[in-house]
Amino acid sequence: MKILLLNPNTSESLTTRLVDAAAQVVAPGTEIVPATAPRGVPYISTRAEAQIGGAIALEMLAERAGSYDAAVIAAFGDPGLFAARELFEEPVVGMAEAAMLTACMLGRRFAIVTFATALGPWYQECVEMHGMTARCAGIRMLDGAFRSISAVQEEKEDLLVALANDAVASTQADVVILAGAPLAGLAAKVRERIPVPVIDQAQAAVKQAETLALLRPFKARQGSFQRPAGKESTGLPGPLADWIARRG
Amino acid sequence: MKILLLNPNTSESLTTRLVDAAAQVVAPGTEIVPATAPRGVPYISTRAEAQIGGAIALEMLAERAGSYDAAVIAAFGDPGLFAARELFEEPVVGMAEAAMLTACMLGRRFAIVTFATALGPWYQECVEMHGMTARCAGIRMLDGAFRSISAVQEEKEDLLVALANDAVASTQADVVILAGAPLAGLAAKVRERIPVPVIDQAQAAVKQAETLALLRPFKARQGSFQRPAGKESTGLPGPLADWIARRG
Amino acid sequence: MKILLLNPNTSESLTTRLVDAAAQVVAPGTEIVPATAPRGVPYISTRAEAQIGGAIALEMLAERAGSYDAAVIAAFGDPGLFAARELFEEPVVGMAEAAMLTACMLGRRFAIVTFATALGPWYQECVEMHGMTARCAGIRMLDGAFRSISAVQEEKEDLLVALANDAVASTQADVVILAGAPLAGLAAKVRERIPVPVIDQAQAAVKQAETLALLRPFKARQGSFQRPAGKESTGLPGPLADWIARRG
Amino acid sequence: MKILLLNPNTSESLTTRLVDAAAQVVAPGTEIVPATAPRGVPYISTRAEAQIGGAIALEMLAERAGSYDAAVIAAFGDPGLFAARELFEEPVVGMAEAAMLTACMLGRRFAIVTFATALGPWYQECVEMHGMTARCAGIRMLDGAFRSISAVQEEKEDLLVALANDAVASTQADVVILAGAPLAGLAAKVRERIPVPVIDQAQAAVKQAETLALLRPFKARQGSFQRPAGKESTGLPGPLADWIARRG
Amino acid sequence: MKILLLNPNTSESLTTRLVDAAAQVVAPGTEIVPATAPRGVPYISTRAEAQIGGAIALEMLAERAGSYDAAVIAAFGDPGLFAARELFEEPVVGMAEAAMLTACMLGRRFAIVTFATALGPWYQECVEMHGMTARCAGIRMLDGAFRSISAVQEEKEDLLVALANDAVASTQADVVILAGAPLAGLAAKVRERIPVPVIDQAQAAVKQAETLALLRPFKARQGSFQRPAGKESTGLPGPLADWIARRG
Amino acid sequence: MKILLLNPNTSESLTTRLVDAAAQVVAPGTEIVPATAPRGVPYISTRAEAQIGGAIALEMLAERAGSYDAAVIAAFGDPGLFAARELFEEPVVGMAEAAMLTACMLGRRFAIVTFATALGPWYQECVEMHGMTARCAGIRMLDGAFRSISAVQEEKEDLLVALANDAVASTQADVVILAGAPLAGLAAKVRERIPVPVIDQAQAAVKQAETLALLRPFKARQGSFQRPAGKESTGLPGPLADWIARRG
Repeated sequence: MKILLLNPNTSESLTTRLVDAAAQVVAPGTEIVPATAPRGVPYISTRAEAQIGGAIALEMLAERAGSYDAAVIAAFGDPGLFAARELFEEPVVGMAEAAMLTACMLGRRFAIVTFATALGPWYQECVEMHGMTARCAGIRMLDGAFRSISAVQEEKEDLLVALANDAVASTQADVVILAGAPLAGLAAKVRERIPVPVIDQAQAAVKQAETLALLRPFKARQGSFQRPAGKESTGLPGPLADWIARRG
Repeated sequence: MKILLLNPNTSESLTTRLVDAAAQVVAPGTEIVPATAPRGVPYISTRAEAQIGGAIALEMLAERAGSYDAAVIAAFGDPGLFAARELFEEPVVGMAEAAMLTACMLGRRFAIVTFATALGPWYQECVEMHGMTARCAGIRMLDGAFRSISAVQEEKEDLLVALANDAVASTQADVVILAGAPLAGLAAKVRERIPVPVIDQAQAAVKQAETLALLRPFKARQGSFQRPAGKESTGLPGPLADWIARRG
Repeated sequence: MKILLLNPNTSESLTTRLVDAAAQVVAPGTEIVPATAPRGVPYISTRAEAQIGGAIALEMLAERAGSYDAAVIAAFGDPGLFAARELFEEPVVGMAEAAMLTACMLGRRFAIVTFATALGPWYQECVEMHGMTARCAGIRMLDGAFRSISAVQEEKEDLLVALANDAVASTQADVVILAGAPLAGLAAKVRERIPVPVIDQAQAAVKQAETLALLRPFKARQGSFQRPAGKESTGLPGPLADWIARRG
Repeated sequence: MKILLLNPNTSESLTTRLVDAAAQVVAPGTEIVPATAPRGVPYISTRAEAQIGGAIALEMLAERAGSYDAAVIAAFGDPGLFAARELFEEPVVGMAEAAMLTACMLGRRFAIVTFATALGPWYQECVEMHGMTARCAGIRMLDGAFRSISAVQEEKEDLLVALANDAVASTQADVVILAGAPLAGLAAKVRERIPVPVIDQAQAAVKQAETLALLRPFKARQGSFQRPAGKESTGLPGPLADWIARRG
Repeated sequence: MKILLLNPNTSESLTTRLVDAAAQVVAPGTEIVPATAPRGVPYISTRAEAQIGGAIALEMLAERAGSYDAAVIAAFGDPGLFAARELFEEPVVGMAEAAMLTACMLGRRFAIVTFATALGPWYQECVEMHGMTARCAGIRMLDGAFRSISAVQEEKEDLLVALANDAVASTQADVVILAGAPLAGLAAKVRERIPVPVIDQAQAAVKQAETLALLRPFKARQGSFQRPAGKESTGLPGPLADWIARRG
Repeated sequence: MKILLLNPNTSESLTTRLVDAAAQVVAPGTEIVPATAPRGVPYISTRAEAQIGGAIALEMLAERAGSYDAAVIAAFGDPGLFAARELFEEPVVGMAEAAMLTACMLGRRFAIVTFATALGPWYQECVEMHGMTARCAGIRMLDGAFRSISAVQEEKEDLLVALANDAVASTQADVVILAGAPLAGLAAKVRERIPVPVIDQAQAAVKQAETLALLRPFKARQGSFQRPAGKESTGLPGPLADWIARRG
């Protein structure tokens, strides 16, 4: 089974982190196929960047259509997720979606912990988009600057653990999600220092993608996620234009 | 006052319809500045097209930053709206948002009536995105094919009136919104044949844009809609890349 | 166009404040017609006073039926609003409703800031009545006494600004509404000292009334806001009794 | 114990029906004290009439303050209820509120069945005001004319039973509420012909009033239902003006 | 009238407390019939104990079927309530349900105050199960240890009053519910020291049970609370097995 | 990895069906350990049976504590799920929970299709318990009798497919869940005849259990799912009593 791990950010270092975390939990026989955005921003952290990054994710999926069994959009706010689910044949999972739904099976409410204040509004809209508002005990963000998106995980490890512990103590959250692609792989390092189950977003996402690939062979032919009728377009990248036009 | 009427579709004919409808209600001294998407699809009707069209709307706004007092994103599902509100200095109004909020002042619940089934899921997500689920009595769609997006308004006029009347009778809706850019200007023609107030989306949007331009001179400097810190990007169109980088 | 600015309080000084604020934003050709309640309380601030004041608003509207193009009920809790919308032919806008819906176009959540604790419960029910609970980041009230309802705006200006800033900092509200008729006109004076857009309720209301008057020529003939069948009554003021009876 | 059964309608015949139904279930020692509105409409059925009738209910309560142990506002939409609860010392129960909360103890969802379409929107807002939307399986209304408000119960008995049965069959409601003062006493006559428990609104209300009178000796001194500070007014009836001013 | 006061805990001392509190408010002619769980835990305080205790409550009701007019399940989280309501002929009221619904008639929001942190999650789920989330201003729990479940009421009286006052001050709750069977009877002792109405759960429950017994003679024959068809079982206590099988 | 597949029904034939379906999708190295309830009913279909069956599930888990890596409670209404999650060390997944959360990743709304009307109310409460109301497009039930719980899947196959197709057509559901243990394994047989993805509850549950076992090594030590303090009990089966007492 091939799982496309699609990083809609342009940072290769984040792709590496995501793959490394995911590789620890995939089933024998599952191949993780990484892809990094060829254009966009190094790290999506605002609504505007998510709007742009989600469109780029569609371009990336169109280029790879038919080459994977399921895909993960590996940014926590799930840019372009519902669009991708509608447009393409294979299952697509959002990294936030997978983390939140997995957390629901471990408790009533989860806390989302991340490394930068800028991420809060976008993550909040992602929580709402998935109908998870009542299950979310809050989003906690570190507020200081960080040196590098590639190494923020190591730089802020202790502060993130403290923030997670504070979130649990003050909100009675049952589960903690360490959110944002730069934190992939952190859960395994810190879970003994946090008193509730800790979800690794990349691991949750790749396992959910595996599960969907196993369970669901058919694309919707009715309902709101059937593939739209073909439509011509202007100025879109070739593979995406072709896919939208149902050509080739 | 200059109101940018931004059509994220590539169809010039829709821009003309939108401008014609809006021009009937603007205040003396308001100038409507039209803009049509240079790339994308002729008419956005799916989640995927909205993801792409919303990103194109950001490009269009970046090219015109500073040249208008308020902008309307003139597609009913409001592609890119919150991203634009966050990124740019001037107020931005969505055409669906403006129509729905205006309808709220005329009744408890509104019905959305449109010309194609494909639009339903996208419009439904737009209703939810704005927290208007409890105010929406339903979305009704014609299900037949149509000859041309430019002339669907004339072709389907009687069917749309019948659908609106049926929606009112079966859902007790207090207001009807005729939704989708191709229906701009229809309300004035048919309102005597519908027993509740009928909202013209383009007119509602341009009036709300005028109101915001009058009332709100300052961009948020805190909260979730403050302008993000500058960030470098790769492969984005120049004006948008510059704006995101806070250059120039 | 004539906009009836109906103050359901008996304080003429508040009417003056409301008219002064509104006059700054109306379109050329719009005439603001003020009316002050002939009976009731100087300033409505409880549920009971709103129940009574709302009934008085209906009396005032009945006396003036046919003489205006749209009306504003100019008390923040919108006393009698839905009743007026049902009973009369022309559009009626509530000052709270207009402020909140306008705020929705500037951000995800607004904070309501007012000058007296007594107003909190009534305002809260108003927020709920309009289905705006999820959009309201909180209601903040000054808790000290004030010397005069006419001059509370000047007396408390600095405290209100501080309260607004505190609300923004602690709730991440995207917009501030300065609520309560005695605060009409304050937004223009203080907006530079508050880091998010500030809504002036009187200005929002009169602009929304203008918009409705422009957009909606027909009263509902079906749905829940059609005019009720005539009914005889006992002991009600003549114009209201006549209107309810559909006489004359 | 004295229970004030306050009919905010001017129809004495309805007061009689309400008292007759209530008398069948009160405890030994409970005296029902009836009061009929001296002004207003014969039968409240719209939002506007409820706004006016609620203000009249406050006048009636002010005239009788201190003479009862608990009061029932005996119109199904609960006009003036929260205002009365805030203003007066003794417990006040709404007839709709009491019927709905009692129904909650007999099933998950109740259907409201009434005799005229005009009542629907007002009842719907009452359901929402009490936060009972998720518990309400629907409001069903007979749509024909009726000869007399005093005798609509007898005239429409069979149609109401059929409507109740239809509501149960189509919505899976667990309980039926026969709503509207003219239907007081009907439940006992028809309950064998309806396959789920049937609530008599007048009986539920008087029992709940008894319960509150027994359980709650103290008026709130904090929170949103404490009695407001005294305030002078203009042109209100003497007892109500005095009570609001905290005089005498 | 006979009201079965069913204590699903094994502590006889709690049964005594519950009966003593309830006896103060029942109508002349009402007999309280106490029953204490023959197996289970001394005091239910977790989800798991509620799952078990609810099943035991069903066994107790089966043993007593036909011998009472209405029953109270006298543990605050209402273990087994909906199951009992479905299975048995007579009305069954939960102690939490009765307290919350009664509180709704005294204010908009109630605070729940109890004596041990362990109770919080179970009570929270009970609040949600009854759809009372929006009416609940919060659940406050003492966090220290206590000497004996029988005497925790006396031991902690002052702390509970302080906690109730703090809840009112910080949440603006309109009503306080003293929750948990060990606190039955406490309201009468402390209500003068708490500035909002205080609900005694046992008293509310027995009065609501009386009301239902008076109002509702017929068991649902349709809807979701009709008695299920008979079914054979294995290894269940005789009376419960017989009742489920509709034998005898 | 050992996954305990706990059937809280007494029917061995259902256990066999569940195991057969699950075995098709488990990872290499995963062992499914089946367990069938030693007492209770052949097939849980009411709230009362779920209350009892949930308590029996706790007994079964206590007997097997420490012998598995994750458990599935394999009845669609998830009897005893939150209690088990609180009480035991290893992850526990409900079959309804797993099916619904998995469905969320394939569409916005799912339809639940089952074989008997009696199951509707219990399933509805399960949907609500998991906060999935807005994601559930409806629960559809066959209403005829069936010959045997063991063979209802084969007997009703065509009717279930027709019901699923009708649910999709009338509710626009994006996904179908075939619900109820007797339908385990049906999805694979019928999915080509249903135009949207079809979830097999047993397969979803076992995959989710695998995922949790992989991701979450630590039991909560804080929050609402930490293991309760030990408590003595009376009359409970030995292993459960010991586990609750934290003995041995």
